[in-house]
Amino acid sequence: MSLTVVGSMAFDDIETPFGKSGRIVGGSATFIAWAASNFVKPINQVSVIGGDFPQEELDALSAKGVAFDGVQVKKDEKSFYWAGKYHMDMNTRDTLTTELNVLGEFQPVIPDSYQGSEFLILGNLTPQVQMSVIKQMKTRPKLIVMDTMNFWMEVAMDDLKKVLKEVDVLLVNDAEARQLTGEVSLVKAARTILTTMGPKYLIIKKGEHGALLFHENHVFFAPALPLEEVFDPTGAGDTFAGGFIGHLAKTKDISFENMKTAIIVGSAMASFCVERFGVGRLREITHEDISNRLEQFVQLVNFDIDLI
Amino acid sequence: MSLTVVGSMAFDDIETPFGKSGRIVGGSATFIAWAASNFVKPINQVSVIGGDFPQEELDALSAKGVAFDGVQVKKDEKSFYWAGKYHMDMNTRDTLTTELNVLGEFQPVIPDSYQGSEFLILGNLTPQVQMSVIKQMKTRPKLIVMDTMNFWMEVAMDDLKKVLKEVDVLLVNDAEARQLTGEVSLVKAARTILTTMGPKYLIIKKGEHGALLFHENHVFFAPALPLEEVFDPTGAGDTFAGGFIGHLAKTKDISFENMKTAIIVGSAMASFCVERFGVGRLREITHEDISNRLEQFVQLVNFDIDLI
Repeated sequence: MSLTVVGSMAFDDIETPFGKSGRIVGGSATFIAWAASNFVKPINQVSVIGGDFPQEELDALSAKGVAFDGVQVKKDEKSFYWAGKYHMDMNTRDTLTTELNVLGEFQPVIPDSYQGSEFLILGNLTPQVQMSVIKQMKTRPKLIVMDTMNFWMEVAMDDLKKVLKEVDVLLVNDAEARQLTGEVSLVKAARTILTTMGPKYLIIKKGEHGALLFHENHVFFAPALPLEEVFDPTGAGDTFAGGFIGHLAKTKDISFENMKTAIIVGSAMASFCVERFGVGRLREITHEDISNRLEQFVQLVNFDIDLI
Repeated sequence: MSLTVVGSMAFDDIETPFGKSGRIVGGSATFIAWAASNFVKPINQVSVIGGDFPQEELDALSAKGVAFDGVQVKKDEKSFYWAGKYHMDMNTRDTLTTELNVLGEFQPVIPDSYQGSEFLILGNLTPQVQMSVIKQMKTRPKLIVMDTMNFWMEVAMDDLKKVLKEVDVLLVNDAEARQLTGEVSLVKAARTILTTMGPKYLIIKKGEHGALLFHENHVFFAPALPLEEVFDPTGAGDTFAGGFIGHLAKTKDISFENMKTAIIVGSAMASFCVERFGVGRLREITHEDISNRLEQFVQLVNFDIDLI
């Protein structure tokens, strides 16, 4: 029941209307691992870090069942670094600095100990790295989930489309779904992706407006929890992805019905993420916290109806 | 079990990326009546029209159980007229023309036949007219629902706040909730409205992003149905309100639990409204259509979870 996670392990430097984070730990694979580790062990991490990445972060993740055999450490180089600033509505942000550093030449190597992993999630990274990981898996995982972003559609669309052919579930946001297909309507965009691009399941993330899951002619909607304040949205999408794949890996059930539940779990995990800078809140939550939050989602959307 | 509906009965002239409507029937009370008449009879309409308002529209509504004793007909004047144009994303629109006409001097008169109405919905109109109707009801209705818009916040905030003190349920969109309270967070805006302004229930409409119901410390979320195309959003909010109050009036149950169901019913009715210009789609739907649409909402949000 192992899960392999591919993505960045990095530093973020974030400014929001509520304050500045300074240089803190971030990266897609970091958020995914923190979220998923509440549901499944081991988590086989695939990434690359510099000598500056804090050992205490690795130790904390290790204690949660995360393995680092697939994480390359380049002692004399620096980890990936991103600095950004959010505007008042927290829905838009400006990138202030991007330093690829170790990520620039990253060639992932899947160790033997990761082979046979049943679940694989490709966090946001260059499509070429995502494809390399898929190719190195000697047995195809039961489920491959892929996250990506608009940047790769702009600079590596051909590579991106090749990876899409190999994955089961694609995760994108609403703007990216439109960009990928040229369709304004998300329903039409979903149909184009599902019928022509490869994935059999599509999740469209809409931030504070929730998430949609499409499969064949079915659609499911999960709201975001209405929060008093979104303190820092960085990593919310990755945390959502981690909760989603974590629940699937835990239950080993990849039916559409169970994916609905997995999306609710992902939404619950994302609602914790945004309460603090970075992984601050994810580090401290308990199973009881998660259970209570899931109950809030049940209350949020549950209704009775006698069809007239 | 009667419902009194106050609002405009008017003409709209709409341009969307999909076409032009020409001069068609619209108005908040028209949409509310079309939606609510699927659930409750009689509907006591309170409005004002000119000699130009089509008799066939009145006949069609009459056949659905709508009474017009409270609708003033000014034979030598013109009905309210609004022309607007939607942009590509259908979330923003420009008003091209507003002609108040008969609405300019409207003084509503509640006929004796409307007295004792258990449910009252104040569609979007000047707060002074809304207040006049409340004052004329000899017995306070079991539930008073009020819709309003940003325009009244700009030109008649004091009057608006007086009406708010008299109503049970307020319906506004997200921008209006923020404008009314000065709070960016919808959760904070809701708390301010519910604890200081009068209403005990607040519905925040978010268009294609669904609707939130707040009451005390509870919150419920209803999604909008993901549609291939939103042909014309005009009247969707009024239609939502009509479905909402229609379900409550039908069931005579004003509990929070039943309001959840009522919001789903409202969302279902709104999903029909946007499929055509004006009330075109609302005119033709059957109880079976409504039932099927409600089942789609159940499928859209229903999930199973074993709390961990």
